[in-house]
Amino acid sequence: MFEPHTLVVEPILRNALLEDLGRGNDLTTDAIIPESLRSSAKLVAREPGIAAGIAISCGAFALLGDDIEVTIFVEDGSAFSAGQTLAEISGDARAILSGERTALNLLSRLCGIATLTHTLVSTIAGTRAHVVCTRKTTPGLRIFEKYAVRCGGGSNHRFGLDDAVLIKDNHIALAGSIKEAIARIHAHVGHMVKIEVEVDSLAQLRDILDERIDAVLLDNMDVATLCEAVGMVNGRMLTEASGGVTAERILAIAQTGVDLISVGRITHGAASIDIGLDIGS
Amino acid sequence: MFEPHTLVVEPILRNALLEDLGRGNDLTTDAIIPESLRSSAKLVAREPGIAAGIAISCGAFALLGDDIEVTIFVEDGSAFSAGQTLAEISGDARAILSGERTALNLLSRLCGIATLTHTLVSTIAGTRAHVVCTRKTTPGLRIFEKYAVRCGGGSNHRFGLDDAVLIKDNHIALAGSIKEAIARIHAHVGHMVKIEVEVDSLAQLRDILDERIDAVLLDNMDVATLCEAVGMVNGRMLTEASGGVTAERILAIAQTGVDLISVGRITHGAASIDIGLDIGS
Amino acid sequence: MFEPHTLVVEPILRNALLEDLGRGNDLTTDAIIPESLRSSAKLVAREPGIAAGIAISCGAFALLGDDIEVTIFVEDGSAFSAGQTLAEISGDARAILSGERTALNLLSRLCGIATLTHTLVSTIAGTRAHVVCTRKTTPGLRIFEKYAVRCGGGSNHRFGLDDAVLIKDNHIALAGSIKEAIARIHAHVGHMVKIEVEVDSLAQLRDILDERIDAVLLDNMDVATLCEAVGMVNGRMLTEASGGVTAERILAIAQTGVDLISVGRITHGAASIDIGLDIGS
Amino acid sequence: MFEPHTLVVEPILRNALLEDLGRGNDLTTDAIIPESLRSSAKLVAREPGIAAGIAISCGAFALLGDDIEVTIFVEDGSAFSAGQTLAEISGDARAILSGERTALNLLSRLCGIATLTHTLVSTIAGTRAHVVCTRKTTPGLRIFEKYAVRCGGGSNHRFGLDDAVLIKDNHIALAGSIKEAIARIHAHVGHMVKIEVEVDSLAQLRDILDERIDAVLLDNMDVATLCEAVGMVNGRMLTEASGGVTAERILAIAQTGVDLISVGRITHGAASIDIGLDIGS
Amino acid sequence: MFEPHTLVVEPILRNALLEDLGRGNDLTTDAIIPESLRSSAKLVAREPGIAAGIAISCGAFALLGDDIEVTIFVEDGSAFSAGQTLAEISGDARAILSGERTALNLLSRLCGIATLTHTLVSTIAGTRAHVVCTRKTTPGLRIFEKYAVRCGGGSNHRFGLDDAVLIKDNHIALAGSIKEAIARIHAHVGHMVKIEVEVDSLAQLRDILDERIDAVLLDNMDVATLCEAVGMVNGRMLTEASGGVTAERILAIAQTGVDLISVGRITHGAASIDIGLDIGS
Amino acid sequence: MFEPHTLVVEPILRNALLEDLGRGNDLTTDAIIPESLRSSAKLVAREPGIAAGIAISCGAFALLGDDIEVTIFVEDGSAFSAGQTLAEISGDARAILSGERTALNLLSRLCGIATLTHTLVSTIAGTRAHVVCTRKTTPGLRIFEKYAVRCGGGSNHRFGLDDAVLIKDNHIALAGSIKEAIARIHAHVGHMVKIEVEVDSLAQLRDILDERIDAVLLDNMDVATLCEAVGMVNGRMLTEASGGVTAERILAIAQTGVDLISVGRITHGAASIDIGLDIGS
Repeated sequence: MFEPHTLVVEPILRNALLEDLGRGNDLTTDAIIPESLRSSAKLVAREPGIAAGIAISCGAFALLGDDIEVTIFVEDGSAFSAGQTLAEISGDARAILSGERTALNLLSRLCGIATLTHTLVSTIAGTRAHVVCTRKTTPGLRIFEKYAVRCGGGSNHRFGLDDAVLIKDNHIALAGSIKEAIARIHAHVGHMVKIEVEVDSLAQLRDILDERIDAVLLDNMDVATLCEAVGMVNGRMLTEASGGVTAERILAIAQTGVDLISVGRITHGAASIDIGLDIGS
Repeated sequence: MFEPHTLVVEPILRNALLEDLGRGNDLTTDAIIPESLRSSAKLVAREPGIAAGIAISCGAFALLGDDIEVTIFVEDGSAFSAGQTLAEISGDARAILSGERTALNLLSRLCGIATLTHTLVSTIAGTRAHVVCTRKTTPGLRIFEKYAVRCGGGSNHRFGLDDAVLIKDNHIALAGSIKEAIARIHAHVGHMVKIEVEVDSLAQLRDILDERIDAVLLDNMDVATLCEAVGMVNGRMLTEASGGVTAERILAIAQTGVDLISVGRITHGAASIDIGLDIGS
Repeated sequence: MFEPHTLVVEPILRNALLEDLGRGNDLTTDAIIPESLRSSAKLVAREPGIAAGIAISCGAFALLGDDIEVTIFVEDGSAFSAGQTLAEISGDARAILSGERTALNLLSRLCGIATLTHTLVSTIAGTRAHVVCTRKTTPGLRIFEKYAVRCGGGSNHRFGLDDAVLIKDNHIALAGSIKEAIARIHAHVGHMVKIEVEVDSLAQLRDILDERIDAVLLDNMDVATLCEAVGMVNGRMLTEASGGVTAERILAIAQTGVDLISVGRITHGAASIDIGLDIGS
Repeated sequence: MFEPHTLVVEPILRNALLEDLGRGNDLTTDAIIPESLRSSAKLVAREPGIAAGIAISCGAFALLGDDIEVTIFVEDGSAFSAGQTLAEISGDARAILSGERTALNLLSRLCGIATLTHTLVSTIAGTRAHVVCTRKTTPGLRIFEKYAVRCGGGSNHRFGLDDAVLIKDNHIALAGSIKEAIARIHAHVGHMVKIEVEVDSLAQLRDILDERIDAVLLDNMDVATLCEAVGMVNGRMLTEASGGVTAERILAIAQTGVDLISVGRITHGAASIDIGLDIGS
Repeated sequence: MFEPHTLVVEPILRNALLEDLGRGNDLTTDAIIPESLRSSAKLVAREPGIAAGIAISCGAFALLGDDIEVTIFVEDGSAFSAGQTLAEISGDARAILSGERTALNLLSRLCGIATLTHTLVSTIAGTRAHVVCTRKTTPGLRIFEKYAVRCGGGSNHRFGLDDAVLIKDNHIALAGSIKEAIARIHAHVGHMVKIEVEVDSLAQLRDILDERIDAVLLDNMDVATLCEAVGMVNGRMLTEASGGVTAERILAIAQTGVDLISVGRITHGAASIDIGLDIGS
Repeated sequence: MFEPHTLVVEPILRNALLEDLGRGNDLTTDAIIPESLRSSAKLVAREPGIAAGIAISCGAFALLGDDIEVTIFVEDGSAFSAGQTLAEISGDARAILSGERTALNLLSRLCGIATLTHTLVSTIAGTRAHVVCTRKTTPGLRIFEKYAVRCGGGSNHRFGLDDAVLIKDNHIALAGSIKEAIARIHAHVGHMVKIEVEVDSLAQLRDILDERIDAVLLDNMDVATLCEAVGMVNGRMLTEASGGVTAERILAIAQTGVDLISVGRITHGAASIDIGLDIGS
């Protein structure tokens, strides 16, 4: 459940802090708090959830002050309860106050994603299916949100347009046929790139059963059709169910035997977890 | 309801597109779709809402293709219904397909914020109160989300830590007293910066009634206390209610006579509006 | 008199150093001075002035060498005399020599601004007026120059076009009337943004006396007119005198009772203070 | 008198505009001026001077609006009188108003430098000497200021630490001797790099007369000593007078026969030229 | 054989041009050539080869001048002979002269890679094997060099460390066993990521034959061992030969039946193709 | 033989690492190797050569891990033999594995350049001539490659278009005559810029013998003509032979008495030196 590398994380954090610092100062804090004051603060969960991005978020404090120390009490990927302290930050009091909002904005969102993911993952525990995310992420924060999905027990679909192929309805329509679209991919794409094809009917599925592809996305099918599709595929490639995946339906979908269930909502629709920063004590 | 300037918007869009393009290609699209193909597509709302960021989001297509033309059918700030076409994009087919997700990720989020804002604004129509946003925004997207709040009929609180002063509980605690905190601000901050002070009791409020400040944030007070607070202030400064503002409570809060009601949820808790891109036809 | 945050300062310093290092080397220093040589140097004032930006400027040395230590002898905002040592730098000799010009270019300019500001501030000591700067700053260095103004005892006007409103003659002309201009502002701008209006006659001033604005800029008025204007305003809003503020006139202007006197010249017209770097000893 | 290339100019302008636009808007202009309004404006000199950077500065308007047209009436390097129109800008009224301060801040500074340079150049007309600038430039604006010096009839010294060698007193002291310093340079630096050595006495000068160097900087010498120095050098290398060059002394210095007179003040001490932007008509 | 997207290409080109323009000017060209001069030039091959990156490289001219027109006579991926004109550039003469070296530096390198790749691809024509590149590319130019490999008829291995898994000897050693290494990958990596394992003996190969992986890299095996390995794998996964692939050995390697032959030398060891820019006529 | 300054080096290294890390992870390493594992590794030469860029390249490891220590055993500029350990790196095992390829890609290239340069330099030992590089460098890596040339005992020609003048055939043709081209340069370029003119015949050379220039590039002349040219110049300016410089011809060229021999091939045509990273032991 490795985090994105610091070399990639830091510019995003820096950008977020500069968005808040604007022309260079937290006016309120810098006018009121002496430069030399040291303080400590706790990140405390106001509601239960699954931790994601605690170290990443606390990186905001370290970028604002030289002497910041962070102690993390809950590992990313673990559950926390309401009232639990996730981490403690000590050092430059100005840095703690000025970084609070940026750290919380990020952490609340990432814990929200991990928590929603975990709920769905738990719902289908015992089936062979994995919950996977989509590219419906927040512009600029995709690598963080993909990481939060992993923290929640989910698995990642492709990260962008360049690291895997997903042939969708529009590609098929513009290529003329599904087989032509696949042929063009094989002519252009290297052997280390996985290929998935979206189909919306069993007829379309039949057409590609003998193609050299890695996965098929079964789009917006009802449970009965999914069952039949899984049977037709019979292990030739991975099967992914997509579309209309609600908390109510997900177990039934998983029980069809699909390998993957992709849910855009776990990134774009997760409610933030309420987390606060308590100074002192 | 002016948009952020293109000079500021474009780097954010470019960053979002590069996050998706990665090492330089939409493998699927570039392998399947001829470079010369022109096409057109419609951005279609799958559910009703308030428009925000249509031109901004469509800027993604223009950054990907030289000949992209965008026609906008719904003005930002206007309501749209399910099925309504928000805009039409025509030109380079590859640009349309490769830009789809980035444009939709942004637009769905911004319309979601405008729509939730609008709901709350409508609920308190007829009162003197304005719905205002907070700094609980998505890291990297604050200027877009503040704009979406304006599209929904809301008003903006400060944009960062440097453009206005908000003295909060932690500042007061570390300064020793509320009056000392205000004094330090007056000693350091220029005359073009507004000053707001957060209080959580009528006792605290009484302490600052004669201070030269622009607004008071009445934090987490019940409706009766808010009423009393508004009476005490009696127009000396703006009054802002904050904390626990639900759809159910907001009208009662507004009816206390406060000038402003700040709601973090309109940015961090708004559900995305489902918008799709329909190619062709 | 807080400095801009390091997170904002450092990229500007880095840019300035790269402008001088070009393709990567101080040819003279790197060819002549051994990499291992340690040295020390003093920043010495060649003429009296007010300190501004000593720590900021010495940041240039620290960016060039790992082991640089800086000891500051004169606090920003304090007066220094000719011959006085402002700071001492010790460590990597190459870093000291290569950073000298960048540090001095910045420091001389900032002390110049603080010194001129201080002269004007002293001239009007005992009046209620504050000396404030304008946006007539050096492109790329505004936050440093605004800080130098504070070091000199002046106060800051708005930092840019986005953090406060200043309705000027051209805006009024294009809006049709001063009242229409103000109305449009109230329709679009949030409650945390201050509003100032420029007027150039008492007639214009009369028109806005009952508007909900924070300050009025009394442009290019003679002392008698300023007196009358201050009387008319009578504390309803802040009054700012602007235009033709010379060292000779400033006291008379201050004695009219205006709250603020803005002087573009303190940033764009301040003479640099001569400061040198003395190696060794 | 070629301008720096657009590829280099544009990022500096963009940075300057973003410094003013902050979080994306000229609040005043965008609230008051309709997006569709076209307008025109003239850049008018309020005092006489020498033009420098008109096209560069007007680039600010073009970056803010798509349809900006600029007509330049005074070539860079030419004299203008008070009241003369330097250029006319037409197009997007918002772009004109929002870009005004950035363009003027830059243009006033550059014309100031060209004008002061020109005064000194004129003073020594008829002598063999050239007025040259130093590295005492504004951090971030060096290439603009070096260009303004050329516009004023001056010539450029080295642009940074990497494009030419200037051995100064500190280098000599740390190397042990002037000959050792020169030897180290010859051992490390390529044949396309010019080498200048600073001397502050005739004794020092005598030591380097037979060295393979391109120029000698005669530092802080009185006119009689300069005369003698020029005679000693006798054309073996270029001679540059430096230090204490005032408007009063410069002709006498030039008449000593030196090839170059460097004046730090033409960049760091030039008074801005007052230039205004007149909207409409 | 799609090119990397312009959005990704342009910053690399811009960086390359700024490396050459330095402080903003081609001194020679700008001093000698009038700004208004239009000219034309041909990119002419001095030796035969395979085209790669012609449009990309000519983008350098377009970034330097507004009116540059480029006509391409040889498609990327096609062969050209000595003396053949690859493209013609017309427009701003300064842009053509200033951009020449950057464009040629890039184009010569990319054509060199395509040409070497093509030689190897031709040598093994008729076998099932594909020539693939490695990560032994020039820092900063990987996406260009990977594209040049495609132009030469080769295929791309993974683009970086994040888009595919390649378990190498060091990973295996540190994990304890090859099976443990693979198990950790399956526990952490999503379903759209391909997995390849490096083995250097048939014993190691035997250990992984039943693992769920996509490819095996047969490192530094002789032809007989490769033959045996291919037989053992028997289509369960892709086979890649690597190490010691010379022009002499490649056909024998291909005839073992491996699917892929990776050759680091096609990117890091390709000789540049001599291409010149002929002005005028 | 000073290295480019860290301030310039680091962004290039960072860019190279990000090119490899992509969306933030070395998937293989991060999945298999525990975050806490420390390790050590040696950079070992697989073939003899001249060292260049060891510290620079090892900077890649330090950017990836906090605790990396590098011990360098071979100084840049020294010869190493096959099997020799160039440096040892210890610390964060993930950083060592993830940085390996970037460090080796850079180091192999730079050592290759130094080695080829050294071969040519050795061949002409005892003559007065210096081997110099050209601008035929890898886009983005010029300052590294110029440094590698110095490590190999060569000398650097100009670094870009802005730090020295080189009048070439196209400039002469467009200026009308060689004298006119030189005159334009003298009219525009400062005294710290060296001027070289390219000639391709003795007739052309004769035309410039009395011009005030620093060097003449004798392009593509045979040895006899070079001899005659050197005699004609007779020490008035530096002479540089260029074009068709092979390992076989270079001694004969050097013996003509030219001062400089420029060889594009030492940067664009050098074969990489095979260097490996051996983990552990």
